Amino acid sequence: MNQNHFLDLFFNPKSVAIVGASRHRNTANYWLMANLLNLKYAGNIYPVNPNAAEILGLKCYPSVREIEGEVDLAAISVPAPLTLGVVKDCIAKHVKGIVIIAGGFSETGGRGQSLQEEIKRLLKENGIRCIGPNSLSPINSANNFIIGFGAAYKLPKGRLSFIFQSGLYQPRLDYLLNDMHINISKLIDLGNKMDVNETDALEYLKDDPETEVIAVHMESIAGDARRFFQLLKEITPKKPVIVLKSGRTPAGAKAASSHTGAIIKASDVVFDTALKQAGAIRVQGLDEFFDLAKVFEYYQPLKGNRIAIASFSGGEGVITTDFCYLNGLTLAQPSEESMKVLRTIMPPWEIPVNPYDTGVANQFVSTDTVSVYVDTLSNDPNVDCLAIQVGGPQTLITVGSQATLDRWTEYYIKAVQKGKRLVIWPLDPRNVKDMKDTLESHRIPVYPSAERAVRALGALYRYQTIKERV
Amino acid sequence: MNQNHFLDLFFNPKSVAIVGASRHRNTANYWLMANLLNLKYAGNIYPVNPNAAEILGLKCYPSVREIEGEVDLAAISVPAPLTLGVVKDCIAKHVKGIVIIAGGFSETGGRGQSLQEEIKRLLKENGIRCIGPNSLSPINSANNFIIGFGAAYKLPKGRLSFIFQSGLYQPRLDYLLNDMHINISKLIDLGNKMDVNETDALEYLKDDPETEVIAVHMESIAGDARRFFQLLKEITPKKPVIVLKSGRTPAGAKAASSHTGAIIKASDVVFDTALKQAGAIRVQGLDEFFDLAKVFEYYQPLKGNRIAIASFSGGEGVITTDFCYLNGLTLAQPSEESMKVLRTIMPPWEIPVNPYDTGVANQFVSTDTVSVYVDTLSNDPNVDCLAIQVGGPQTLITVGSQATLDRWTEYYIKAVQKGKRLVIWPLDPRNVKDMKDTLESHRIPVYPSAERAVRALGALYRYQTIKERV
Repeated sequence: MNQNHFLDLFFNPKSVAIVGASRHRNTANYWLMANLLNLKYAGNIYPVNPNAAEILGLKCYPSVREIEGEVDLAAISVPAPLTLGVVKDCIAKHVKGIVIIAGGFSETGGRGQSLQEEIKRLLKENGIRCIGPNSLSPINSANNFIIGFGAAYKLPKGRLSFIFQSGLYQPRLDYLLNDMHINISKLIDLGNKMDVNETDALEYLKDDPETEVIAVHMESIAGDARRFFQLLKEITPKKPVIVLKSGRTPAGAKAASSHTGAIIKASDVVFDTALKQAGAIRVQGLDEFFDLAKVFEYYQPLKGNRIAIASFSGGEGVITTDFCYLNGLTLAQPSEESMKVLRTIMPPWEIPVNPYDTGVANQFVSTDTVSVYVDTLSNDPNVDCLAIQVGGPQTLITVGSQATLDRWTEYYIKAVQKGKRLVIWPLDPRNVKDMKDTLESHRIPVYPSAERAVRALGALYRYQTIKERV
Repeated sequence: MNQNHFLDLFFNPKSVAIVGASRHRNTANYWLMANLLNLKYAGNIYPVNPNAAEILGLKCYPSVREIEGEVDLAAISVPAPLTLGVVKDCIAKHVKGIVIIAGGFSETGGRGQSLQEEIKRLLKENGIRCIGPNSLSPINSANNFIIGFGAAYKLPKGRLSFIFQSGLYQPRLDYLLNDMHINISKLIDLGNKMDVNETDALEYLKDDPETEVIAVHMESIAGDARRFFQLLKEITPKKPVIVLKSGRTPAGAKAASSHTGAIIKASDVVFDTALKQAGAIRVQGLDEFFDLAKVFEYYQPLKGNRIAIASFSGGEGVITTDFCYLNGLTLAQPSEESMKVLRTIMPPWEIPVNPYDTGVANQFVSTDTVSVYVDTLSNDPNVDCLAIQVGGPQTLITVGSQATLDRWTEYYIKAVQKGKRLVIWPLDPRNVKDMKDTLESHRIPVYPSAERAVRALGALYRYQTIKERV
């Protein structure tokens, strides 16, 4: 919440009109209202649809003008050509803010473009702020307010806020809310950025005490670029900002312009340099975007970059070491005290303790090597973080049972409690759901591969160096 | 099979002694023998273990010397210090080839190093070739011959052969053979490369008619580097060669030397340039290694680089377009004929047909847009390949049922039959196993993300340009 900013109205409306609300469960518009009811959003909800008297037990209005109570926010989900009429109704009703969901505006050029300009002019004249068009916004987990096309039965509350340029997250809504295990504070989808843009969103989140991490997907800067980077510079020493900027290649830029009407003015090299100078963490694709969002949501930054690695094969240890180096992490040298213990989990000859090869060790050592390894290094002041590979019952016969996995989990949790940053990757993607659910319920992030696990830790350390630099 | 090469003995032995065979199911050594029996390997199997009279129904010998019949190959899985004695037995028995499985040799320096040198000298004097130590080799799907520590109940037969420097694949053996859906011809794990090295393996596979694609994991070049790159140059115009060279950073190189005794002489930049000149396709990590292995095993190279993309959000389409560009692919421009059909799956305004946003289209079009899209472009001479996102029942409400997924699959198969290269990525990783199993049983590769899907296609095209260059 940031009551001094105009966007607060969009995240914390006391009342909302859903224009285009539907009774039909198999339509996207049905969920605009159903979600608010299912989640027990406490504000007033006014469905607007000239063809219904009641929707989901609430009185339905033929037009926004007919609503008796005050309307803080109108979410308009009617086809583009009908939107202008609804906007005029909203003006007449003195609605305070508007979200336009439909596409078919500036991104199409021609008629859509002029329609958008007409709406923009009208709203400006009447001092009404607007998100969109072509946007599904916002989500606020604090008050269970959501405008979304997919079913949402819970909003996992956390300290990370998302800014999207488009409904990219929308087909993943169910995954995001239920199984991605990234807890969120707020989400705003900006769409065509006719009025509200990335700078407004950053300004709001900058002073929002419920937001400690920001992840931004964008295709263009619609507002004042100088102000955007200035804001980033002010935010990044306090809150990590992850940026996925797409349309970074000529082909991508062209696609972006048809997608959200994004006009990409500067070259990507210029953008990239400016982002770096502003202390933002740039990512290249969606995998990295959500990977980093998770690690920053789970963990505070890494003060040191000394990592310990354990994998089921020495070969994977070497590959992982390469990735550590490329991500700014360095192999930890365990203390002499640790070494005394670690020597008890060696085969008849000495293998490296870092990266540690549990596959070889398990052939000769009857102790549970993984538990000893993690337990020992979780007490070692020379170790800042760990990346550990886990396997399920289907893997190496030496890995064993559910009891083993449970014991490992205990040691992982203890390591995190002792201040280590721990990341896990499984041997293979089969049957990992239970393990992932358990570990992530304890706020230990699981990544599909060593490469992605150490990339996340590397970002956690890189951010610390950014903080210190500023 | 390449009968003129000495390595043929290792892939096609008529008899094998398993030294260190075990009756105990919970030991790795048990599976060395059990796999051969379960897979009905047709050669003679001689278990060797002084503490057993019979193992899995076969007569067990106290030493290799006592075996009555001829022994083509001895796979030695006893601890390093006992290996020298067994090697002497093998020499006395006139065994033709040896695989040494144990670690604890040159990679440990000191005593292990001198032990390895002693064995090397003895074998050379007696003209016996040897894979290892520190290796689990080989696998040949043609005759169901496998030396491996994990349970193997089937060897999926295909046209791809692997060369590994280490048992990296070993903890993943069950996954590789059962669920990775990469069919293999042969696999060789070279370990410490005391004798047989990467050059020997390449030489063999070069003229092996059962091998059409080669994937190499290596930490060092143990043999003659000039010969290695010369061989690559000869192979790559005929067979794609994927190379994962680890130990490419200073930290990784150090880890590699403790792992397989790998001595990394040249800088990675030099290695990288030489690989490129030799026409090999270098990958950076295990994800990419197996991703590319799969695409090359499934598909012939791509003659053109024009791609069509369909995703559930325009935002993801833009991101995917960026990755296409970065991977050397260009957005296809559908023919006028295609455009006539594609206009029927547009919302009330025109959206781009490439990348195509099914999420927006599905809000307005009641036709099954994905089927129309794939069907139309599979007939379009302007399109070489397609990357299509699929969703399960849990995703967008507009995606729908199993029947939809089944219908899509039919169109995907048809597109591939018409010569298009098609790759699929799911919206999220939940419940994709059935879909993946089905599609991959039809030889349509499924990747976890758009980024990885188009990276695989990009490599398929890059290889074609390599072929043409030579």
